[in-house]
Amino acid sequence: MRVRGVRARAWRIPLPQPVQDATHGTIHCFTLVTVRIASDEGPEGLGYTYTVGDVGGAAIVSVIEHDLAPAVLNQDPRRVEQLWQAMRRRTDYLGHGGPTCFALSAMDIALWDAKAKACGEPLWRLLGGYDPKVRAYSGGIDLNLSLDELKAQTQRALGAGFRAIKMKVGRPRLREDCERVGAMRGWIGPDVPLLVDANMKWTVDEAVRASRALAQHDVYWLEEPTAPHDVRGHVKIQQEGALPVAAGENLRTLPEFEALISAGGVAFPEPDVSNCGGITAWIKVARMAEARNLPVTSHGVHDLHVSLLAAVPNASFLEVHGFGLDRYLMSPLTVDAGFATAPNSPGIGVEFRWDRLKRHLPG
Amino acid sequence: MRVRGVRARAWRIPLPQPVQDATHGTIHCFTLVTVRIASDEGPEGLGYTYTVGDVGGAAIVSVIEHDLAPAVLNQDPRRVEQLWQAMRRRTDYLGHGGPTCFALSAMDIALWDAKAKACGEPLWRLLGGYDPKVRAYSGGIDLNLSLDELKAQTQRALGAGFRAIKMKVGRPRLREDCERVGAMRGWIGPDVPLLVDANMKWTVDEAVRASRALAQHDVYWLEEPTAPHDVRGHVKIQQEGALPVAAGENLRTLPEFEALISAGGVAFPEPDVSNCGGITAWIKVARMAEARNLPVTSHGVHDLHVSLLAAVPNASFLEVHGFGLDRYLMSPLTVDAGFATAPNSPGIGVEFRWDRLKRHLPG
Repeated sequence: MRVRGVRARAWRIPLPQPVQDATHGTIHCFTLVTVRIASDEGPEGLGYTYTVGDVGGAAIVSVIEHDLAPAVLNQDPRRVEQLWQAMRRRTDYLGHGGPTCFALSAMDIALWDAKAKACGEPLWRLLGGYDPKVRAYSGGIDLNLSLDELKAQTQRALGAGFRAIKMKVGRPRLREDCERVGAMRGWIGPDVPLLVDANMKWTVDEAVRASRALAQHDVYWLEEPTAPHDVRGHVKIQQEGALPVAAGENLRTLPEFEALISAGGVAFPEPDVSNCGGITAWIKVARMAEARNLPVTSHGVHDLHVSLLAAVPNASFLEVHGFGLDRYLMSPLTVDAGFATAPNSPGIGVEFRWDRLKRHLPG
Repeated sequence: MRVRGVRARAWRIPLPQPVQDATHGTIHCFTLVTVRIASDEGPEGLGYTYTVGDVGGAAIVSVIEHDLAPAVLNQDPRRVEQLWQAMRRRTDYLGHGGPTCFALSAMDIALWDAKAKACGEPLWRLLGGYDPKVRAYSGGIDLNLSLDELKAQTQRALGAGFRAIKMKVGRPRLREDCERVGAMRGWIGPDVPLLVDANMKWTVDEAVRASRALAQHDVYWLEEPTAPHDVRGHVKIQQEGALPVAAGENLRTLPEFEALISAGGVAFPEPDVSNCGGITAWIKVARMAEARNLPVTSHGVHDLHVSLLAAVPNASFLEVHGFGLDRYLMSPLTVDAGFATAPNSPGIGVEFRWDRLKRHLPG
C-alpha cells in the first residue's frame, strides 16, 4: 500500500452570523483546508484543518503540497509515526509552529483515516476504544450577545440535548462578566456544568481577580485566561485564583504542552487535533495528561475530536464548537442527553458534502 | 508616508558545492524570500529571509502577501512596532512559528529599511550606534569534509581576514569529533577562538560528554548541542558540561528565548533576524541578554546582522555564514583582521543584484 497522490484545497466558509470573542474580535468566516491522500490500493484518506477568519489557507495548502507531500509519496500510509517524523524533519528549519503545524495536522489526520479504513476500524476503537459516548458541551462564541440573545442561545442548546454550557468572558468590565455568568447560572440551574472562556484577554493579575469573582457562580473551568505561552502566569492563576484552568488551543507542539503541564499550569489540557500536529500528537498530549492525573479536553473540530476522546480513559468534555461544519458533513454530530457518540464507520468517520463546499472556493 | 504595495518572491539559490551538518544532512540549495515595500513617498524598503534547502518558500510568500500585507497597506511604515503587532494579531490563530515568523521577519526588515532610509540613517546607528566594527568568525558547514579539506578551508578563512573559526561536530563517533577539533586547534594555534556547532545532534547526556571531551581543545562555545526546546536539557549541558552553550537559531518567538535565557540554559543567545521576528524582535532578545549579563551573537544573514551587532553594547561574534549571498549583493561583507564593519549607507545597507537572482526563480 503506497501513497500515490496528495491534494489540498482551502475553502472560505462564511458563518451564518458573525460571532465575537475577547481576542479575535468579530469573526465573519473561517478557512477550512482539506487534504485527500490517494493510495494505489485501499480507500482515500481525508484530513482537514481550519483557521479563524480568512488567514493562512493558501500558506497551509502550500506547505502540504510543496513541503510535506514529498515525505509521504510512495510510502505506506499506515506507518503514520514514521511519516509524521519524516514530515517534521522536512520542515525542521522552517519551524513547527504556524502554518507548518496546521498542514502537518491535516496530513496526519488523512493518514490515520486511510489507515483506519484499511483496517476496517472506526478511529475511536483503533486508537483505544475506551467509551464511544463522550460528554459534550455547547461552546458559545457569544461575547457580543445581549442577555436576551444569550438566554435564547442557551435555551436552544439545552433543547438540542446539551447538559453543559460554555460562554465567553472578557467584557470591558469584570462586573459585566460576573453579571452575565450569574444570569447564565440562573437560567441553567445548579446542575448543569458552566464553563467560561476568556480567549487570552487578561493579564495574569486580572485573571486571578476574575477567577475569584466568577467562582461564586460555580464555574467548572476558566479557559485561556491569559497569553498561552506564559507558563508561570498560568501556574499563578491556578494557585491564586479559585478555578481550574483549561488551555492549549494555541499551543502547537508537544514541548509546549509538556512545559505547561509539568509546571502545573493547566488542569484541563486542550489540544486541538487540527493544529497540534494531528491525531499522532493529540494522543501523545492525552497520554501526558493521563500520566499527570489530568483529564484531556478538546477545541473545535468536534466531528473528529469525539473519536479521540472516545478512545482514551481520561476524557473530559468534548467542545461542540460554534463554527461547526455541520452543513458540509454527510453525518453531523448529534448530542443526546448531554452525550455525543463517536461514529462507528471505518476511518475518522467524517465525510464532506463536496457539492456544498464548492460554493466556497476563495475568489 | 503610507505603504502602497508589498511584493514578495521566492528564489531557489544553489550552493556552489553541497555542504553538510549533523541535522540537515547534505544541503544543495537554500531558499531566499525577498520582499519589497513601496510607499507613496520615500524610498522602497527591502527585506528578506531564507530557509535551508528547498522548503517553505511558497508558504512564506503566501503569508506575506495574503496574511501580513493587509496589516501594513496604507499605514505609515515608520511605525514599525505598531505594524509588527498588527501583523502578529492577524496571524494570532495561525501561530507565530513556522512560515509565519519567517514572513514577519522579512516584512519587519523591509519596514526598518524604509524607515532608516527615510531618516537618512544607516541601520546600525539608527538602532543604537554602539560600534560599527564587529568581531566576525567564519562559520564552516563542514561535517563531511576530510581533514585535508577542512585544513584548506581554514587556511582560506584565515587568508580572508578571519581570526575566529567555527566548525561542525556531530560525527558518528565522539572520538572523530575530538580528533577533528584537535587538528583544527593545531592548525590555527592557541590564539584564534575556536567554536563548534552540533546542530541539535545529541541527547543531553551525549552533549554533556562531548562538552567535557572537547573542552581540552579550548573551545569557545558549544552551539546547539541538543533539541532547541529542551530548556532543562540546556541547563544541564551548561551545568554539567565544560563549555558555554550558544543557541537560538531554531527559536522563533520572544517567549522561547525568555524561557531559555531565564532558566540559565544559554550563554550566547543567538537570535536570527531572518526567522525570530525581524529586527524588532532581534533587538528585544539582545536587550534581554544584556539584562542577564549575556552577550548576543547571530546566525546566518551576516550582511544584515553586522548592523544589528554594531548597534548594541553586548555584541559577541558575528557569524559569517557558509551560505552567503555574496554573489547576489551589490556590496558583500568584507572581513579585515578579524572584524567586519557595518555599512554606512541609509537603510539596512543591503542591495540585491536582481539581474543575478533572476536566474534562480523556482521552476
